[in-house]
Amino acid sequence: MKFLRVHTDEGLRDAVLTEDGRVATLPGGPEAFDPARLRERGAAALEGVAFQDVRLAAPLSPGKIVCVGLNYADHAAEGGQEAPPEPILFMKAPDTVVGANDDVLIPRGSEKTDWEVELGVVIGRTASYLETDEEALEHVAGYVLVNDVSERHFQLERGGQWDKGKNAPTFCPIGPWILTADEVADPQAIKLGLDVNGDVLQESSTAEMIFGVAYLVRYISQFMTLYPGDVISTGTPAGVGAGQKPPRYLKEGDLLRVWADGLGEQHTRLTSA
Amino acid sequence: MKFLRVHTDEGLRDAVLTEDGRVATLPGGPEAFDPARLRERGAAALEGVAFQDVRLAAPLSPGKIVCVGLNYADHAAEGGQEAPPEPILFMKAPDTVVGANDDVLIPRGSEKTDWEVELGVVIGRTASYLETDEEALEHVAGYVLVNDVSERHFQLERGGQWDKGKNAPTFCPIGPWILTADEVADPQAIKLGLDVNGDVLQESSTAEMIFGVAYLVRYISQFMTLYPGDVISTGTPAGVGAGQKPPRYLKEGDLLRVWADGLGEQHTRLTSA
Repeated sequence: MKFLRVHTDEGLRDAVLTEDGRVATLPGGPEAFDPARLRERGAAALEGVAFQDVRLAAPLSPGKIVCVGLNYADHAAEGGQEAPPEPILFMKAPDTVVGANDDVLIPRGSEKTDWEVELGVVIGRTASYLETDEEALEHVAGYVLVNDVSERHFQLERGGQWDKGKNAPTFCPIGPWILTADEVADPQAIKLGLDVNGDVLQESSTAEMIFGVAYLVRYISQFMTLYPGDVISTGTPAGVGAGQKPPRYLKEGDLLRVWADGLGEQHTRLTSA
Repeated sequence: MKFLRVHTDEGLRDAVLTEDGRVATLPGGPEAFDPARLRERGAAALEGVAFQDVRLAAPLSPGKIVCVGLNYADHAAEGGQEAPPEPILFMKAPDTVVGANDDVLIPRGSEKTDWEVELGVVIGRTASYLETDEEALEHVAGYVLVNDVSERHFQLERGGQWDKGKNAPTFCPIGPWILTADEVADPQAIKLGLDVNGDVLQESSTAEMIFGVAYLVRYISQFMTLYPGDVISTGTPAGVGAGQKPPRYLKEGDLLRVWADGLGEQHTRLTSA
């Protein structure tokens, strides 16, 4: 099943994508993320409107967003870094989230606004101190496309921790939809990529992740509790702007196409804050 | 005015501390943080119950918690670090928040659970790209006591970013109350401290901060948008466990007293997760 949220004349609505690719909104206001309840509500959805006629919101309001750094060896290498011995974790605030086709704002004073296509993991059940990979995957509700937009100067050259370059407003396009885990045969076999103005700059597969989804969910649950609606963004493959020779950063008017197999596409225009 | 939240038989309630130190709960469920509305509702509060008879919740549910690292020169020095040239920022997830007198859980596998008394700044108005210190202070609703509980092994010795040691459940006791900014003559003249089992280990003043409140609010607003109900935790003075000779970390049954002038006290018992 594919869960979405859309802006309507009556406000924000939960929705599902129907078999024939239309968007059926669910009655009532948006609810806290609960996959069983969404599935139940979605099963009753009858007809929808054409996908291209809706304005997409992010398909959920995450409680927290835990990001994994340097989780593809080729991305670590393009930044001159070793592959890490264990996952590197940092955070994006939920207030950075926007819909799949919303504009991304280049922060004032930015020199190095950059992109990162990532597989997002949506947590479905409270996860704490998980012990096995099987158990970890039982806590995953589904998968979602994330662009972990980053300002490299703020992240790396302004003292200390990465969070400073990860939390500008609009820096977290999510969606278009959450694909439920039962429809994903293998989360480590999802192709994903990103174009800038038609130039293919990222193209890889989650097969290349250093730490896979099950490991990450289990690992993170040792350090923090994961709740339903939390999102883990699992890291990006090579091909970010900072890794181009010479480096290439985003400027006003640039158009991103971000995609992953089964998870849809994001179409993002860059504007100035 | 002092805003609180308390657990009652009818659920969570907003409350104010009356002139004679009693807790007056406000009718209706807890609302999103809005200082003007709280002030209005609180003005009508008549009588309260004795402070020692309520069970304190955190006085707000922060939207995000932005923490400042190494913001007291003596704390940077005790960790063998230089004073930073500009503020170091990291994040705590709002799901780590507990009330002022709730237990703190030592995470499983923890070797180095540590304390950090801090002045918390509660944002009252949306703040983005602020230009002056005066403007920054106009966006502050009030001040609150924060213990930025930290696991040093997870934070510093497990690869990469500090967030990994800052986000275990219960790692952010907040309160007992928010003291509104109009009652704080100078946020850079607040004494604060912390005892462990009666041993005074932190005792300092916000006069010792490297970057003051106004600077921090203005600075952070260049990198992210601050919303009403966001909290900035402004860093800790010397005297954390990692800085003791030899280092001293928290163990089950330890009792913390955390305090700041005008912001009340926290009484925390350490238990095992």
